[in-house]
Amino acid sequence: MNEIKTAGARSGRNARVLARTNPAPIYLPTLDRHVGPIDLLDQDGVDRIHNAAMTILETTGIEFRDAIALADWKRAGAQVEGSRVRIGRDMLMDLISTVPPSYRMHARNPRHTIDVGGRNSIFANAYGAPFVYGLDGVRRPSQLADAHNFFKMAQMSQAMHVPGILPVEPQDIPVPQRHLDLVSSALILTDKPIMGSVLDQTAARDTLAMVRIVFGEDFVDQNVVLTSLLNCNTPLVWDETMLESLRVYAAANQPCLLTPFVLAGASAPASPLGGVTLLIAELLAGIAYSQIIRRGCPMVLGVAIMGVSMKTGAPMMGSPEPGLMNLLVGQMARHYKLPWRSCTMWTGSKSPDLQAGFDSANSMWPVLLAGCNFIVHSAGFLEGALAVSYSKWAQDARQLENYHRFFSGLKEENLDALLGDVAQIGPGGHFLGTDHTRENPMQINPLQNNDSFEQWFEDGAKTADEIGRIEAARILDNYVQPPMPGDQAAALAEFVARKRLEYQE
Amino acid sequence: MNEIKTAGARSGRNARVLARTNPAPIYLPTLDRHVGPIDLLDQDGVDRIHNAAMTILETTGIEFRDAIALADWKRAGAQVEGSRVRIGRDMLMDLISTVPPSYRMHARNPRHTIDVGGRNSIFANAYGAPFVYGLDGVRRPSQLADAHNFFKMAQMSQAMHVPGILPVEPQDIPVPQRHLDLVSSALILTDKPIMGSVLDQTAARDTLAMVRIVFGEDFVDQNVVLTSLLNCNTPLVWDETMLESLRVYAAANQPCLLTPFVLAGASAPASPLGGVTLLIAELLAGIAYSQIIRRGCPMVLGVAIMGVSMKTGAPMMGSPEPGLMNLLVGQMARHYKLPWRSCTMWTGSKSPDLQAGFDSANSMWPVLLAGCNFIVHSAGFLEGALAVSYSKWAQDARQLENYHRFFSGLKEENLDALLGDVAQIGPGGHFLGTDHTRENPMQINPLQNNDSFEQWFEDGAKTADEIGRIEAARILDNYVQPPMPGDQAAALAEFVARKRLEYQE
Repeated sequence: MNEIKTAGARSGRNARVLARTNPAPIYLPTLDRHVGPIDLLDQDGVDRIHNAAMTILETTGIEFRDAIALADWKRAGAQVEGSRVRIGRDMLMDLISTVPPSYRMHARNPRHTIDVGGRNSIFANAYGAPFVYGLDGVRRPSQLADAHNFFKMAQMSQAMHVPGILPVEPQDIPVPQRHLDLVSSALILTDKPIMGSVLDQTAARDTLAMVRIVFGEDFVDQNVVLTSLLNCNTPLVWDETMLESLRVYAAANQPCLLTPFVLAGASAPASPLGGVTLLIAELLAGIAYSQIIRRGCPMVLGVAIMGVSMKTGAPMMGSPEPGLMNLLVGQMARHYKLPWRSCTMWTGSKSPDLQAGFDSANSMWPVLLAGCNFIVHSAGFLEGALAVSYSKWAQDARQLENYHRFFSGLKEENLDALLGDVAQIGPGGHFLGTDHTRENPMQINPLQNNDSFEQWFEDGAKTADEIGRIEAARILDNYVQPPMPGDQAAALAEFVARKRLEYQE
Repeated sequence: MNEIKTAGARSGRNARVLARTNPAPIYLPTLDRHVGPIDLLDQDGVDRIHNAAMTILETTGIEFRDAIALADWKRAGAQVEGSRVRIGRDMLMDLISTVPPSYRMHARNPRHTIDVGGRNSIFANAYGAPFVYGLDGVRRPSQLADAHNFFKMAQMSQAMHVPGILPVEPQDIPVPQRHLDLVSSALILTDKPIMGSVLDQTAARDTLAMVRIVFGEDFVDQNVVLTSLLNCNTPLVWDETMLESLRVYAAANQPCLLTPFVLAGASAPASPLGGVTLLIAELLAGIAYSQIIRRGCPMVLGVAIMGVSMKTGAPMMGSPEPGLMNLLVGQMARHYKLPWRSCTMWTGSKSPDLQAGFDSANSMWPVLLAGCNFIVHSAGFLEGALAVSYSKWAQDARQLENYHRFFSGLKEENLDALLGDVAQIGPGGHFLGTDHTRENPMQINPLQNNDSFEQWFEDGAKTADEIGRIEAARILDNYVQPPMPGDQAAALAEFVARKRLEYQE
């Protein structure tokens, strides 16, 4: 019932007609940042955080609640007592030294291949919301059809580099089968780089089997075609489920976003320096373990930092301290020469309103200023990540284009030509018709309403929420499915059908 | 009919009761930025803009459409032909060399005195909107009562350093009398530093007369108690009305925010480098002229940059190119060692919705990253600066507190104490009760709703628009008028009454 059709290598008549009437979107490449990053610390400050993190790992240590990991650590020479692992700083720094500072993440369509690390940033879809606000604005449990829709919207978005793998948590599909539907539909409905399922090691293995069908076994062994999201239980616990998936992916040379989920003030210290020190300890331990599995496997230092209200205990997005923590994490990631990941565009608001706009922007700016490489949750979140709104998704995706433009920085301009214009136009004139103006068009967000009040009122007085819903419907109407070779499509379908039967037993 | 009562040096019983039940707000000092500024250009880039701007002033020249200014320029040695003034770069750089890099702007209550320039930033109120969205959310022409309300709200806001002088354009007061009502009520209803009227030279003189009543003649001659906003007609025209006011204020040693109003793509080139080059030429010419009036008078390099949609001709706020232009202007201002001013928190939206949040935040971040000193329009704007919303004002003012916190940067933290906590709490624990958490509380925006959907729904499903209106009403209910000595109040009232009669004739 949840089957989706693949588009053949030659797309059908309808697809051709659509492609003619709706020109293909202009996809934005990996963002090559020319604004920032901002470093808050001097070398002494970096050393203080580093040394404190090392002291945590050497004295308090960290829990790896997984028998295989404990045996691996023991063999590697760490001090293991029960599930507590204490790691000396020399050993730790040696292990992380083989993580590449950047990697290329391949899409099945090479034009969508991206670079992760260094001065590059990419935007990835929201992840894991159990609720959606539909095209009608009504809140309901997420379904597989929503995941399909968000894959389609990510495919059509100029700036959404990575459709992810779990744009919503589809409540209508049994848990053991979700990854089959999600991974196969992400591969079929988009030709951008996708993420891997981390439900458990079976899901991770199935994900790998499916990308091998599409990319080929040898290619997957030598190239990155997935990046998967694994959480650490802050403070200082890596659990079995996550470590099992990490082993599957690292062995296959596929990086993970190793990410402590931080409620600053609860699961971690409330403060920038203290909180980041704890994170760094957790992260370096996890990344070091990945190198015990497969030396040289790319890996990503990840953070998901929100504040917690000391009054109500609720998570807070868009507040200033997590922003400062992102700046610190970015500086430490550069110190360790590791690509890194953060979260953004989220809000505690229950509707795409003024708060949602402020929270989203106020969580995006620090992340980009911090030089983040892999930016997750780039569109759609409401309710502190519990819900995705079609309207906000469409609005956020357009904002990404503006951030891409700003952080690309200046373009070369011919100032001599400008001087000629000024001399010709003179005082009191205007620049609307000059070559310089035509050659340097300003970016326009088509969802931003800048009409007069009277015009806006006459056109129905639409708020951003309504405009976003209309845009989401428009994107879905215009969606063109990327073609997939017939043998790949058949092999994928066969794999999914076979596994689905297996997991039903 | 529009008389307002002054609070005596000893406030009345009601004020005392209010002060007890509503503790005085914690006012935020001048923001001492420890994040940024971001410089986009190398020295060569700075030199290119500088040289191109000098070339404009030397070859095309600039219009001063004012007989006195033209005579002043001629006497000073510039080349004057008709209303066109051509200024050599040596003369220009000599003139601007006497502008102080920063100044202290005095409030009648010294605790609200602020610093303008260098690493400092201050937030000033919105300015000049002919329409308001009232406490009921309904749009109507602005009235003097609204100006009074926004002065009161600025007085009560933690982060609104400057209440301004024209928070709205009061349509119910005859134009020649507006400045009397506005300046006197700003002085009476707030004890923060105010701005001066620039309607014409009479209004500027009356403004000075009123601040002299409050601060004393000698004090005003030697200290800054006003900063007033004067616009240049981009491209390359300074008109008579503005120059007359500039002469009045500069002669009195009171700085102005000399500000080309830029629609990038129309009144100036659409591009960052080209647009900023033109602005710099206009600004330096205006600032140089201020030093012919009174050498050493503080003066502020100002910009108000918005984009213009090439599709509709409408101004666009919150788009990326004006953000980049702000970064360039900031770097040039630092090059010339001049304090500078920009605009922010504005939007083309017609309601305090998601677009308004994004536009506002996306115009604030670049301005703060650019190291702007005097940040105008910090709360309330909708409709591309044509309207102020009570709701958005209240919401924006809380956002300012978050920006203040973020840009203040890191605080000193005791990492050794943290290590002790980590050792004691260990893996899997929590940090809610530690001294470190208590001593480093996270900032909470009380208008940000982070409750669960269910809780929020039960509480009436309020959007940010409604929450802002409730907050605005709360601020006005809690307003406490600052006391003013009886003789000052009487002299102000006498001055206003006398002038009002005069302007009625």
